[in-house]
Amino acid sequence: MLEPGMTRRELAAAVAKSGLSVAALAALADPAAADAASTPFPAERQGSGMKAALLVYPQMTALDMVGPLQVLTGMGRIELNLVWKSKQPVVTDSGMPIVPTMTFDDCPKDLTVLFAPGGSAGTIAAMNDDAVLDFLADSGKSAKYVTSVCTGALLLGAAGLLKGYRATTHWLAHDTLSLFGATPVKSRVVEDRNRITGAGVSAGLDFGLRLVALLQNEQRAKSVQLMLEYDPQPPFRAGSPELAGKEISDPMRRSLEPALAMIRAAAKRSEKRRA
Amino acid sequence: MLEPGMTRRELAAAVAKSGLSVAALAALADPAAADAASTPFPAERQGSGMKAALLVYPQMTALDMVGPLQVLTGMGRIELNLVWKSKQPVVTDSGMPIVPTMTFDDCPKDLTVLFAPGGSAGTIAAMNDDAVLDFLADSGKSAKYVTSVCTGALLLGAAGLLKGYRATTHWLAHDTLSLFGATPVKSRVVEDRNRITGAGVSAGLDFGLRLVALLQNEQRAKSVQLMLEYDPQPPFRAGSPELAGKEISDPMRRSLEPALAMIRAAAKRSEKRRA
Repeated sequence: MLEPGMTRRELAAAVAKSGLSVAALAALADPAAADAASTPFPAERQGSGMKAALLVYPQMTALDMVGPLQVLTGMGRIELNLVWKSKQPVVTDSGMPIVPTMTFDDCPKDLTVLFAPGGSAGTIAAMNDDAVLDFLADSGKSAKYVTSVCTGALLLGAAGLLKGYRATTHWLAHDTLSLFGATPVKSRVVEDRNRITGAGVSAGLDFGLRLVALLQNEQRAKSVQLMLEYDPQPPFRAGSPELAGKEISDPMRRSLEPALAMIRAAAKRSEKRRA
Repeated sequence: MLEPGMTRRELAAAVAKSGLSVAALAALADPAAADAASTPFPAERQGSGMKAALLVYPQMTALDMVGPLQVLTGMGRIELNLVWKSKQPVVTDSGMPIVPTMTFDDCPKDLTVLFAPGGSAGTIAAMNDDAVLDFLADSGKSAKYVTSVCTGALLLGAAGLLKGYRATTHWLAHDTLSLFGATPVKSRVVEDRNRITGAGVSAGLDFGLRLVALLQNEQRAKSVQLMLEYDPQPPFRAGSPELAGKEISDPMRRSLEPALAMIRAAAKRSEKRRA
């Protein structure tokens, strides 16, 4: 029905006449997008054999996970699973309830990507949850890439997956990486062998694009970047403690003290647990 | 229990002794965060009287909405509602199912922010859905700010909300804004009176921070930016057609032809509908 070399007008007329559904037309427009635009995680996306498990949990920071998820969706050709104890909705720190698509028990062992998002109180709770740590430790043994954004790195750490690795996390929690035997590195994305960790929340986009370059190639990553129009233009210069200045960053550091104490306690607990 | 001037060690000991729950400790650490970290959209967040309705719909682009949602969560003091026809989960283009928290029928009329996210096939379907257009047109009459990210602008346009306004959308659909009587402006975020529109997908972060500056002030926006560590460092320079070059952008433009035809058809239909 659609032939190469048609003018816009001819094409529009052909589309109008086609009687095809919106979804069917979208499939003509971009097979990868239409792929993503059907039911959750359709079989076609499993073509490459690549599989990702993205941990979801109550009070996680939604954007930590949705940034990389959207980038991987743009890449296509990877099975994307949102994994939790059950398929009951989990309420994220933004109040948005997400429905997990797979349980820990059903998660395949031959993962291409294991991913942990961060958060604040919810992440500390997860660091003290043996079911979460067992899942991460077990899946992390065989996953091709073991990854995180933000304080998701502390979850990897509590599961024993960062010992001896360079890593990064949210700037507020950066120093605590050493509690898990990791070497904290100040960088937006840190790659050390098969561990890839991103800085706080919004770093999930930068992390995701690095991951696409590793899973496929730079050309594909650039293509996804353009589709997401990721040409960031923050209206303010305040995205790091250095840029924001002490007036903004110091109160945050101070308010974090009790959480840091809880992170230290969770680190100790997880160390004992693994011993 | 916690007193100013305690050392980290004293604080850690006090926390360990406190017996408080993680959530309660988080509340001490950061009242705004703890607020966000309880049940969805708790009453406390309604203190300011500000209310946002974020449209959700099948096959929407998840990140279009989650970027602004996370920024507004960081701002706090605003009631955030994910609005759809029913409270059945909607599956986004990333495959992630989101549970709407409010129906069109229950949505308050005195909104501070009405927001529409974009997508591809799902957005075109929504542009042809009278229930969606009625909800947007009706809510948009009284909302303090009428906003969108990405092709969410086409939904606002189809609802008649952009006629005579300057606006932006995803670069691929930019020209189509004129079909709705809007003036397309090439800018990351476009503000024209109470219409605020963002460019493609990832522009939701830049848009969200501008919105926080308007709803509260620049200091608060910078604070949120730091909490989200939004100091973007894309690994590639390919976030606009100019940066990516024709080799990457031209195939995308060509593959979009059928979708453009559908957008034109939806624009015509919506114009007739409003006449």
